[in-house]
Amino acid sequence: MPPPELLLRQLLDAAITSAQPARCLAPFLPSPPRGRTLVLGAGKASAAMAAAVEQLWPAQAPLSGLVVTRYGHVPPGAGGGRIEIVEAAHPVPDAAGERAARRIAELAGGLSADDLVLCLISGGGSALLSLPAEGVSLDDKRAIHQALLKSGATIAEMNCVRKHLSALKGGRLAALCAPARVVTLAISDVPGDDPTVIASGPTVPDPTRCEDALAVLERWRIELPPSLRAALQSGRLETPKPGDPRFAGHQVHVVATPQQALQAAAEAARAAGLPAHILSDAIEGESQVVGQVHAALARQVARRGQPFQPPCVILSGGETTVTVRHAGGRGGRATEFLLGAAIALQGEPRVWMLAADIDGIDGVEHHAGAWWGPHSWAQALDAGLQPRVQLDRNDSFGFFEALQTLVVTGPTFTNVNDFRAILVL
Amino acid sequence: MPPPELLLRQLLDAAITSAQPARCLAPFLPSPPRGRTLVLGAGKASAAMAAAVEQLWPAQAPLSGLVVTRYGHVPPGAGGGRIEIVEAAHPVPDAAGERAARRIAELAGGLSADDLVLCLISGGGSALLSLPAEGVSLDDKRAIHQALLKSGATIAEMNCVRKHLSALKGGRLAALCAPARVVTLAISDVPGDDPTVIASGPTVPDPTRCEDALAVLERWRIELPPSLRAALQSGRLETPKPGDPRFAGHQVHVVATPQQALQAAAEAARAAGLPAHILSDAIEGESQVVGQVHAALARQVARRGQPFQPPCVILSGGETTVTVRHAGGRGGRATEFLLGAAIALQGEPRVWMLAADIDGIDGVEHHAGAWWGPHSWAQALDAGLQPRVQLDRNDSFGFFEALQTLVVTGPTFTNVNDFRAILVL
Repeated sequence: MPPPELLLRQLLDAAITSAQPARCLAPFLPSPPRGRTLVLGAGKASAAMAAAVEQLWPAQAPLSGLVVTRYGHVPPGAGGGRIEIVEAAHPVPDAAGERAARRIAELAGGLSADDLVLCLISGGGSALLSLPAEGVSLDDKRAIHQALLKSGATIAEMNCVRKHLSALKGGRLAALCAPARVVTLAISDVPGDDPTVIASGPTVPDPTRCEDALAVLERWRIELPPSLRAALQSGRLETPKPGDPRFAGHQVHVVATPQQALQAAAEAARAAGLPAHILSDAIEGESQVVGQVHAALARQVARRGQPFQPPCVILSGGETTVTVRHAGGRGGRATEFLLGAAIALQGEPRVWMLAADIDGIDGVEHHAGAWWGPHSWAQALDAGLQPRVQLDRNDSFGFFEALQTLVVTGPTFTNVNDFRAILVL
Repeated sequence: MPPPELLLRQLLDAAITSAQPARCLAPFLPSPPRGRTLVLGAGKASAAMAAAVEQLWPAQAPLSGLVVTRYGHVPPGAGGGRIEIVEAAHPVPDAAGERAARRIAELAGGLSADDLVLCLISGGGSALLSLPAEGVSLDDKRAIHQALLKSGATIAEMNCVRKHLSALKGGRLAALCAPARVVTLAISDVPGDDPTVIASGPTVPDPTRCEDALAVLERWRIELPPSLRAALQSGRLETPKPGDPRFAGHQVHVVATPQQALQAAAEAARAAGLPAHILSDAIEGESQVVGQVHAALARQVARRGQPFQPPCVILSGGETTVTVRHAGGRGGRATEFLLGAAIALQGEPRVWMLAADIDGIDGVEHHAGAWWGPHSWAQALDAGLQPRVQLDRNDSFGFFEALQTLVVTGPTFTNVNDFRAILVL
């Protein structure tokens, strides 16, 4: 067996590889149509997905299109090909994103029944494909969105309202593509992998109705301009519904998921002779507390052989969150998770942990995450680090940088969220 | 099988029963000595432990003593016997507690080598047995304790300082009992069940030294009066050390632990035909986030059969915390945990959860916790409850009271911390 921290890194690499667009798109690519093929897309992985399509698509078959991705998310060698790649701001949309969204809507409008649309969707696509429905002002849309965020409404409720105020979400992009056939290839970064939720489902019929959106706004006492209320009441802002004949023949494939990435890591662990257990592909919650819970579980395995016998690997995914408590701190959700776990583990023998973002970028720094081992606690204290103080300052990046246990992959150009692996020997 | 919520309640009852003093003290009671037997003790379970000793001790053998417990923690029928029971304030010590601690110190002073001290220790004993060391003022002790709490010092560091400033902690109570033999019976409410940690180990030699305490105070830049610094530097405040001959023949038994309670619940589940898995006996962290993680795990089991095949029971213990965000809210860590889990689970089919405090008191209300099932989400919404809003207001008690799924046991007079059980069918 390789050294524990190297083994954990290999599991991360297996997870990343399994979610590479070039690898996971191929099995789902349809044959070229009689007419032309238009590629549209949005999300943090959309440039890499477009590059994969260009590479896999028959050279003689006509191919064009436009995808929008986040600034800095264009892989080396991508761009300059048959599919145009636009970079825009995320998570707060900017003018470049709105222009791209408008052009995507225009491109969708000029298709025939012989044409094919390949829609490439990944996490971040909701903000990158932001365009208000006709008659809705961008200011109104933003104000309602902010009010929803503060209201206590559930994610499902927020999505219901947002889809009805958008020109492209909730199946509207696919409706614009009629009469062309639409095949959607999506990389999931959402718990449950529901295609109506990934990037707010621009090509997937929306089961919610205008009156549902009105009920949500009423329940949470959110003000809306009379013109908008009238538009919702009249049904003019209604989204396409399941069973809509314009969607006949359409296909939606979720080509990569957090669970698949965890399964790939589990297989790599088993190949190294270690039993592997997947806790969940969809853990949410404050990162450092999720770290504490993982630490308690790891200790139980190490000390009592419960609920798993060591040696073993324990894996989990999902999307944790960091509540910023200190403006000057640096660190993403992977390092916050790991520092929370580290303070609980201290020098626990026989336990190693690695936490990383599968997109290779944990927050704003150029690292994917970090790792921790039985000797790390003593090394940290010897180096004068102050684990709890640095966690309270949101300085988990600084902590692991000083400890020299950062994990650096570079941008991976795919995004299936968090990756955490625990090795108990 | 009984209805799921009833089964979960049976598992809680099995955990509570396993930690009852009358049941768990008996195997560890020594024979009466040649001389007299003095019972001393402190903690939330100490009155129930004293009552158990009175019941089990031979009627003709001399028995006397004094235990201090939290207000309201005297079981019906206890008190008025050979062991005096004093009630005092917890977690902030009051004058009644200080008087009791002083009397306990005096009682320990008049013993012979033929005498036996039974020391009954349980959670809460640290605050209930609060007495400054000679030459240390109560104000100084409190000020340093407050500064430590804010400093970022670890629990181990805080205990090191506190033991050196206390007249009874860190083995000092046992030292006062010399030359009598001391047998300590402890109910653990701390992660790791370390007897030096439970109630700050009044009868257990302290491996830390005065210079360690000074180093902690220096590391966290905590001011201390010159007289106190001099006392620590001179070693006058040194605690008894492992190997101290005054402790020869002493015994310390941890008679009940969180893990034992979880094992008892696991056995009850297996007796009902359900495989049971213990995640950890020592989970710490913000209650609602711990709830989110448990919900994600339960969903993974229900939907993917990972990491456990349903049907099964999943158990965990420990001591979570609630950050109070709203002064008017009502709810303890069990109901906060469960509401955090419920919002993540929503109407997830085939998953039931119960969370309770094994002492029977979740926060200030007269309930032990609550339960949740697949139909609870719809019932809550139908009743006009607002799960996220009520959680944000720390009103988890109000939520489950309105839902009518509170779990009421009454005070159990024992304390091995949190109990959580998940049933996935």
